[in-house]
Amino acid sequence: MAPANQKFELKTPKGTKDWQGKDIVIRDRIFSTITDVFKRHGAVTIDTPVFELKEILSGKYGEDSKLIYDLADQGGEICSLRYDLTVPFARWLAMNRDVQNIKRYHIGKVYRRDQPAINKGRMREFYQCDFDIAGNFDSMIPDAEVIRIATEVFEGLGWSGRYLIKINHRKILDGIFASCGVPAESIRAISSAIDKLDKAPWSEVRKEMVDQKGLDPEVADRIGEYVMLKGQRDLLIKLKEDKNMAENKVAMSGISETELLFDYLDAFHATENVSFDLSLARGLDYYTGIIFEIVALESEASVKPGAHSGSKKSSLNKSLAGVDEDRSSDPSVGVGSLAAGGRYDNLVGMFSGKNQIPCVGISFGVDRIFSITKSRMAAENSFDAVRNNAVDCYVMAFGGKGFTGLLKERMSICATLWEAGIKAEFLYKIKPKLPNQFKAAETNSVPFCIVVGEDELAKGQVRIKEMGLRDGHPEKEGVLVDLSDIVVQIRERLQEKVISDKSAKNPES
Amino acid sequence: MAPANQKFELKTPKGTKDWQGKDIVIRDRIFSTITDVFKRHGAVTIDTPVFELKEILSGKYGEDSKLIYDLADQGGEICSLRYDLTVPFARWLAMNRDVQNIKRYHIGKVYRRDQPAINKGRMREFYQCDFDIAGNFDSMIPDAEVIRIATEVFEGLGWSGRYLIKINHRKILDGIFASCGVPAESIRAISSAIDKLDKAPWSEVRKEMVDQKGLDPEVADRIGEYVMLKGQRDLLIKLKEDKNMAENKVAMSGISETELLFDYLDAFHATENVSFDLSLARGLDYYTGIIFEIVALESEASVKPGAHSGSKKSSLNKSLAGVDEDRSSDPSVGVGSLAAGGRYDNLVGMFSGKNQIPCVGISFGVDRIFSITKSRMAAENSFDAVRNNAVDCYVMAFGGKGFTGLLKERMSICATLWEAGIKAEFLYKIKPKLPNQFKAAETNSVPFCIVVGEDELAKGQVRIKEMGLRDGHPEKEGVLVDLSDIVVQIRERLQEKVISDKSAKNPES
Repeated sequence: MAPANQKFELKTPKGTKDWQGKDIVIRDRIFSTITDVFKRHGAVTIDTPVFELKEILSGKYGEDSKLIYDLADQGGEICSLRYDLTVPFARWLAMNRDVQNIKRYHIGKVYRRDQPAINKGRMREFYQCDFDIAGNFDSMIPDAEVIRIATEVFEGLGWSGRYLIKINHRKILDGIFASCGVPAESIRAISSAIDKLDKAPWSEVRKEMVDQKGLDPEVADRIGEYVMLKGQRDLLIKLKEDKNMAENKVAMSGISETELLFDYLDAFHATENVSFDLSLARGLDYYTGIIFEIVALESEASVKPGAHSGSKKSSLNKSLAGVDEDRSSDPSVGVGSLAAGGRYDNLVGMFSGKNQIPCVGISFGVDRIFSITKSRMAAENSFDAVRNNAVDCYVMAFGGKGFTGLLKERMSICATLWEAGIKAEFLYKIKPKLPNQFKAAETNSVPFCIVVGEDELAKGQVRIKEMGLRDGHPEKEGVLVDLSDIVVQIRERLQEKVISDKSAKNPES
Repeated sequence: MAPANQKFELKTPKGTKDWQGKDIVIRDRIFSTITDVFKRHGAVTIDTPVFELKEILSGKYGEDSKLIYDLADQGGEICSLRYDLTVPFARWLAMNRDVQNIKRYHIGKVYRRDQPAINKGRMREFYQCDFDIAGNFDSMIPDAEVIRIATEVFEGLGWSGRYLIKINHRKILDGIFASCGVPAESIRAISSAIDKLDKAPWSEVRKEMVDQKGLDPEVADRIGEYVMLKGQRDLLIKLKEDKNMAENKVAMSGISETELLFDYLDAFHATENVSFDLSLARGLDYYTGIIFEIVALESEASVKPGAHSGSKKSSLNKSLAGVDEDRSSDPSVGVGSLAAGGRYDNLVGMFSGKNQIPCVGISFGVDRIFSITKSRMAAENSFDAVRNNAVDCYVMAFGGKGFTGLLKERMSICATLWEAGIKAEFLYKIKPKLPNQFKAAETNSVPFCIVVGEDELAKGQVRIKEMGLRDGHPEKEGVLVDLSDIVVQIRERLQEKVISDKSAKNPES
């Protein structure tokens, strides 16, 4: 063994962190809200290895490939840590040829050697929560369900009115670029410039296109007229009436698919938070159809784009413009998208050749959702009230002179409670002091304690005390109950507490 | 993007696998049983990064360090994948000096570049489920609770009578070695030879000690007399009466701690499955006190060591002897231990110097527990009945000539069900065929379907059909209900189904 006084740099690797305490309780609630939604839609889960053969990841991420973590060559296969959960899913689909369609979700950590920005929730190790629908189905039906899932997740997380689902279609974008005169070979480069419109003003993006990417300034100006447009169905009608669009087959196909999507979103009661936004381009190469991104709205604004897309446009545009400077007090500012996704019909075929399986999916960025949730809870003073664990009952001993500590009695009572499924703790001391036991129970807001005393025990009794009762409450000093009856007594009190806590939270019900 | 016809080797890296289908459903049940036990004891969870700075892991695993996966040096820090969850926990404790005691659990994947043996559940990427109690407490109280937790986990998993908790104490072993005449510098080497007694007969282990490790044959024979001993309190009494032991302070301290442990296990109602086994040595260097290992018993045997430690010794010893050859039909054979752990009082101090925090913990090997569970379920024909997902309701359309498919109506009904928290699916086709819809529902054993037809819908009605009813059942053809009442109607039926399924499983209750 190494000498005990060896010096270590006590830290986690750059861009990684330990999850602990109340943070992990809140994070796990987010996971369980999201998982509940996925399961409600019939999804199953798949768990792939944290690393893949390096060649599986090659050629999937364009310029971002430099951010992939490699494992050292220690003999044998060359592997890399996964960069997302989508490529491993496509590899799995290609390997499992008996699966021609599936709804799968996957919650797991992914790895990117990016510059970390911890306060914005950008880490080198971070969680993704992915949901994807794979299979040959009729147009836009799975796409609409994925967007419906996004609304269920954010409504379930309590973000009603505070999020916006931006959608666009790759074919519409490609049609715009072509009809404005962008040369075919520049389309991806121009598209990734457009993608910066949520962080930079048009003048900067135009400059990048003209100065760095050599685009004709007139072409850039023509593009500018389109990509600043936002709306819902109104914008679809406008595009269909546009002469340039009407002449472009690719654009018209994207427009009619987007129309169908809106029809289906109506049927799914899911149009309200959707904004059709021509500035949305998404970086990744593999998207082939609808693309979308969910962003947080200013908490004050509570804009409902669906309900007021006409009248509130200026307020909506403000919240979309991404001018971060004067909104620094809002925790949702500057964290980027909370979820994103789209249709990728060709990725599985990259692995399996002819066995092409079209897919559409969404990835929720839990670290970012967590960062905003935590800031909001802190602002509302609800963070401190989160319990670290959910212990029901603290079993403690009390006695005067000649106090033995009643350790085995406490152990035996705990064993009885555990056998009944009741969460219980006691202090690991032979002769614990009463204040230390109360302090341990209070630190975790344990609702009940069982006080074991020698005199009471001689009569086969113990005292149940509800913590936090006011002076003068009839049960402030606790209630004596038969030890043989302890499980029933605690269960009854826990049930009553659940009911009274619920009615305290929802006084109207 | 890479060309679509690029050839990939479609596999996961050696020693890793994808979890999918019914396997992951069963695995998640195992996780949730284990997590419920941990939470019942007041544990909180911590989630550390998958990789650590390489120097954190150095000098902790002895010879096994060669099995550690390193990340490639791509500039910046040098990191390795975690080898277990214990060292990262010790690093966390050393970093978080405000935490002087904690009960923590952690479920996560760990990485070892070992020779994989997939049918035995030995993988390069595998799950560990760890529970540890850290803090300065009175002797043996947390140790007893950790063993109590092991019994709750295996009882909770339905393994009653099919597992054995072997315990030993490092101080007793060290005392035996010293009093038999093992030189101090050979103690760890002799100890790791002894650890092989669960896989090899005494003659082989003796040979290794004498031939390879240069031990005096007489000393080896003296050791042999001790390490073949197994029992419970009877063995403790025997050791205390042994002259060599009585003269050895270290051994006597171990013996009295183990006595105390048995007292506490009695108080915890947890002695029954425990075997005090002097051949248990455990490989890892960092253990300092009690050590334990949980093994599967032959499923036929159902030996209860605590209840019959005298009379059934031969049967018990047979099940402990590890003679694998003639038990190859038993899935529990040859998979090694299902869980293991012990006390490690000096590990945190290796990171933090003076801030020493004593710890005791256990690690459950979920891959091995899963392998046996799955084999048993297959033998009992209960594996196929596991549902891939838990969908409550399949919404399907039915119609004659001029059938439109009623897609938006199905979508809207699903949205209503999802809003009520009911798990629902439909087929992503505009005009789906009725047999295809029934097949999709049957494949996943969906209990109810809602059949939407144009005539019924015109009257505001839909048909609810319970799947799998026998011919002649009054509701075989389904029941017409008002669409506006659909949530209430489905909820009622789901509740009745839960009750009837329960009473079918437990006919006596």
